[in-house]
Amino acid sequence: MYSEHRFIRALLRQPVDRTPVWIMRQAGRYLPEYREVRKAAKEFLTLCKTPELACQVTLQPLERFPLDAAIIFSDILTIPDAFQMGLSFAEGEGPRFERPIRSLEDIEQLPTLDPEVELKYVMDAIRMTKHELQGRIPLIGFAGSPWTIATYMLEGQTSKTFAKIKKFMYAEPVALHRLLTHLSNTLIQYINAQIMAGADVIMLFDTWGGILSLADYMTFSLNYMEEIVKKVIRQHNGKPIPIILFTKNSAQYLNSMANTGCDAIGLDWTISLESARSLIGDRVALQGNLDPAVLYAEPDCIRREVARVLKQFGTGPGHVFNLGHGIYPDIDPEKVAVMVEAVHSLSRSPKRDAAGLDRDER
Amino acid sequence: MYSEHRFIRALLRQPVDRTPVWIMRQAGRYLPEYREVRKAAKEFLTLCKTPELACQVTLQPLERFPLDAAIIFSDILTIPDAFQMGLSFAEGEGPRFERPIRSLEDIEQLPTLDPEVELKYVMDAIRMTKHELQGRIPLIGFAGSPWTIATYMLEGQTSKTFAKIKKFMYAEPVALHRLLTHLSNTLIQYINAQIMAGADVIMLFDTWGGILSLADYMTFSLNYMEEIVKKVIRQHNGKPIPIILFTKNSAQYLNSMANTGCDAIGLDWTISLESARSLIGDRVALQGNLDPAVLYAEPDCIRREVARVLKQFGTGPGHVFNLGHGIYPDIDPEKVAVMVEAVHSLSRSPKRDAAGLDRDER
Repeated sequence: MYSEHRFIRALLRQPVDRTPVWIMRQAGRYLPEYREVRKAAKEFLTLCKTPELACQVTLQPLERFPLDAAIIFSDILTIPDAFQMGLSFAEGEGPRFERPIRSLEDIEQLPTLDPEVELKYVMDAIRMTKHELQGRIPLIGFAGSPWTIATYMLEGQTSKTFAKIKKFMYAEPVALHRLLTHLSNTLIQYINAQIMAGADVIMLFDTWGGILSLADYMTFSLNYMEEIVKKVIRQHNGKPIPIILFTKNSAQYLNSMANTGCDAIGLDWTISLESARSLIGDRVALQGNLDPAVLYAEPDCIRREVARVLKQFGTGPGHVFNLGHGIYPDIDPEKVAVMVEAVHSLSRSPKRDAAGLDRDER
Repeated sequence: MYSEHRFIRALLRQPVDRTPVWIMRQAGRYLPEYREVRKAAKEFLTLCKTPELACQVTLQPLERFPLDAAIIFSDILTIPDAFQMGLSFAEGEGPRFERPIRSLEDIEQLPTLDPEVELKYVMDAIRMTKHELQGRIPLIGFAGSPWTIATYMLEGQTSKTFAKIKKFMYAEPVALHRLLTHLSNTLIQYINAQIMAGADVIMLFDTWGGILSLADYMTFSLNYMEEIVKKVIRQHNGKPIPIILFTKNSAQYLNSMANTGCDAIGLDWTISLESARSLIGDRVALQGNLDPAVLYAEPDCIRREVARVLKQFGTGPGHVFNLGHGIYPDIDPEKVAVMVEAVHSLSRSPKRDAAGLDRDER
């Protein structure tokens, strides 16, 4: 299927005129204009829940940089928030739930959500942003993986040892599977609603999959991501809807991730694109994977490291440039400009130009 | 070369009567008797620097559990502390340096240490502990890797993004190499002094190697560990001194780690022993790798997970059982007893008994 966008084309492993680039957390704290909106909104959740504000900050980085995709401003914890678990974000502390999950009973009492009711604010933000983008670049919708959302729901906050969910996993695997099933079903509805609202690409963030042993990862995390990949809408209005999976420290899981039927895998910077390709071949596109700390360096060094990542991927189709992790809040936006420019200029080969691909996009 | 200890024999990939087991941080906060000594000492560093106390807490877990090795109570930051960088440990906050490294000049001013002077307290603790152990089980000496120690010296404290050392790495690689060289040279002297004082085995902890890309890991971390492995004493008093390397999230590096000439590799729990063996074959012994969170589970589950780890390794020689990370401070010591008992009883096969190996050790 044809797409005019180089981001979509790369995800489908089709030829592109140059490597597309976007940045995890591109709408975020490193931008002074974001900090201003965030300050006025007072609460982080107010930003997520006010479609006008979510739309506004989603568009901010696009004013500065010629990025190849937008990603809707939201959070992976919108679902447990809609479960009425008392979510809040204390300054500099991360999320906290007033009423975390403690037992099978708590799980049985979780409501069934209608995304166009309890999470309508997300769809409204997507519709509004799509309207503003006018088809210039694709919009990414996203969600947390069932395992990652469950981790927060059980721990009640960020954890170092993940004692609570692991205790639960070892002691009550059946109850945990029940929670993960409920989350998967909810996520399928949620993702489909995002696609109906206009999301062009879906990304699943499995932030905490990497804390599991390989066997537990397969059983409690990847298994449910596969369920989602297999059941969500993959074509809409005659267009393909690519899905990207992201897990940190995924070297060991890559092969299994590629087997889920996803279109692309997001990689952190600890694995080289070369190694990743040698592990999984050409079945899926790869997204990543510059060390986000490279943006602390000087422009020359940033260009050199961008060149290294591009070279590691090689010249075949199927690469989306990104950082290996969300951009750090204390990065100078000027460094981002250097990176984006370097990706586009260094990946634009005379050969590609001669082929005349996507010439209208330049 | 022959050793009567199953721990040493396993590290040398020789047959054993049952799988040896010890626990990272076995002398630590999960033990009430440790917390008592720690409280009386007031400062964490006082514990490290008072040989009688270090010896006392080193021996504590051996009173409770039939462990196959002791590890000297110390810290990976003894070296930068001896550099007079103003190390302190604030309660629940981790290490902090008053005068972190900021420039090449700071690096050039670092002193050359004589381990038997500035770090004599470590050797005294080893000598004292060896005397108390009377050869019953081997004593492990240890150190941080050059990269990991450099990380603390530059960051000045625990970090999430490692901005300072990465900025330095990208901007001033020559200066960083100079620091790593000085640390390697210091570590070689330090490790040799530990061996002369009686350490039977050496373990190098590369806690922060896993934050690097593969290429940077090879250049800035493994390269220097290899230097150390190649240059330290490997035999003493007619006995082999095995060396164990430990890096978190090491799946990608395993092959290169095995090529350094080390005897064993410590694995966290995110890789299965089976995958590790298929990646590196039988060149080195493997140490690990139960998820430390399994000790939150009930005894039946602990036994089941121990059995899983033993089964994943298989029946060949060269396995030392351990957790994949230091034991968490809120673990019930009774759970450790269950784990140690399970390792010994489940790995004791009739075939091994018939062979009569190490019968005197039972």
